[in-house]
Amino acid sequence: MAERVTLREVGLRDGIQMAASFLATDRKRDWAFRLRDAGLREIELTSFVPAKVVPQFADAAALAGIVPELDGVVASALVPNLKGAENALAAGIRHLNFVLSISEAHSLANVRRSTDEAIAEFHRIAALKDMPAGRDMVLGVGLATSFGCTLQGAVDPERVFEVARIVASAGADELIVADTVGYGNPAQVHRILPPIIDIAAGRRVICHFHDTRGLGLANVAAALETGVRAFDSSLAGLGGCPFAPGATGNINTEDTAFMLESMGFSTGIDIGALLELRRDVESWLGDERYSGAIARAGLPKTYQPVE
Amino acid sequence: MAERVTLREVGLRDGIQMAASFLATDRKRDWAFRLRDAGLREIELTSFVPAKVVPQFADAAALAGIVPELDGVVASALVPNLKGAENALAAGIRHLNFVLSISEAHSLANVRRSTDEAIAEFHRIAALKDMPAGRDMVLGVGLATSFGCTLQGAVDPERVFEVARIVASAGADELIVADTVGYGNPAQVHRILPPIIDIAAGRRVICHFHDTRGLGLANVAAALETGVRAFDSSLAGLGGCPFAPGATGNINTEDTAFMLESMGFSTGIDIGALLELRRDVESWLGDERYSGAIARAGLPKTYQPVE
Repeated sequence: MAERVTLREVGLRDGIQMAASFLATDRKRDWAFRLRDAGLREIELTSFVPAKVVPQFADAAALAGIVPELDGVVASALVPNLKGAENALAAGIRHLNFVLSISEAHSLANVRRSTDEAIAEFHRIAALKDMPAGRDMVLGVGLATSFGCTLQGAVDPERVFEVARIVASAGADELIVADTVGYGNPAQVHRILPPIIDIAAGRRVICHFHDTRGLGLANVAAALETGVRAFDSSLAGLGGCPFAPGATGNINTEDTAFMLESMGFSTGIDIGALLELRRDVESWLGDERYSGAIARAGLPKTYQPVE
Repeated sequence: MAERVTLREVGLRDGIQMAASFLATDRKRDWAFRLRDAGLREIELTSFVPAKVVPQFADAAALAGIVPELDGVVASALVPNLKGAENALAAGIRHLNFVLSISEAHSLANVRRSTDEAIAEFHRIAALKDMPAGRDMVLGVGLATSFGCTLQGAVDPERVFEVARIVASAGADELIVADTVGYGNPAQVHRILPPIIDIAAGRRVICHFHDTRGLGLANVAAALETGVRAFDSSLAGLGGCPFAPGATGNINTEDTAFMLESMGFSTGIDIGALLELRRDVESWLGDERYSGAIARAGLPKTYQPVE
């Protein structure tokens, strides 16, 4: 029985937050359903950030309307603050991802809050679990810039662990360790992830890698060795952070699925179906930055999905 | 004291063997000297293949004339057969790389010989060690398609080990395990490399990975874990095999050096100098396929070469 690895598709959130134009809600719906049909079982669907900050997500509540139809899929949403969390819950999203930056400089640039202020906001969001609206909420916490920051430079791993401990003890159900700007390397993954897994104490640990400097899949392979079995990735490698210069490109879902399946892990993903969806997404979005080796070179003749 | 990892630059051989136009010998000389100045200590300089097969290497003997000036650099050449080996030795190259394909289909397409016929040719080349001309020869043997083949599909690891044993006992000084077509993955690296290292019995083992399907650096990271400390790579990720469809792209020297240095290994490579050379090589070669994340995204603010 092959071991399962989960790819959480973030193309509809991280992938399009910087896209040049608004993608129609119907396209987003189609995108999500076709991800489901291609075997993706976790999808970050949108972000409950104010439309005046990121106009792409003006339709967050409308898009959340498809959640009941996305059977078999865990649909999550990014929430930047308490208000976003309340809106997401009201729209029917049960799985929220709150991101805070370990780097003070990135935190201030990204959300105009210090890391400690973001932690305070997290406490307010976690408190929703004590209210009827948030009782069945699953709360993931992204630890952005855990591997370094384009603004601040080095990030102290001890600060990553400290923040992880705080949020784990205060209601985080999942820890998402993020290399927001593509500074991480496999040796660093081996240093940072084991303590995080200890701190998580049974909570799921998810890695969120960007391929900015080409090490995305090497970092995935290293994280697998530490025991991580869930990764964020985006179709066609779309994505980037508006407040982290040069931070283009989540790891590519097709390529990551290919690597995992080749290594004998089961992802449940139909790579051919993803490549078809990718072609349509490219036609919808137009001139964005797309990555991906499998889209260019094709699957090997020897490729067999793991049962 | 940081551990050393060697990158053998193959851009001047694997990188340009399919280039659309002949690169002037003076450019190749400049390229080689600037690699030396950027800290590369091993360069595959050319191929002693007949000019009617690959016109790019018509100047092999002339280019070999710079070897005495490339102080501190091990300059090697590819030799396709006994005649090529004799020519390389006559031109002053002491370090020869002979490649044979584990895949019969690839061997027949590439050199119109079965694998066993190629092994017989290897015996004839190794016999040069008993002659004055070849007495100080260092003989590397490339095991092409060790991870699979675009023509044949799967390649039996037992056959890789069998051929490795034969050449190791018959005069190979180095074993170069090659993923000629970019089929390999980190799990496969962990399966194939340890037996090869055993068979090598102290001889150097070099990995030659292509990044065709995006797993090149993940495979390097896996090979590092098995103890491999030498890799073939090419500036700007140039390269490909004329008889292996879709086999574009050696692993990129700049990106590989970045990963290794970030992980705490010493490569001796000045990545900035390599990026300058890359810009000139692009202007010389024109419309080829270039890859590389560092050339696009730049080095991280936190980057420090290992002393």
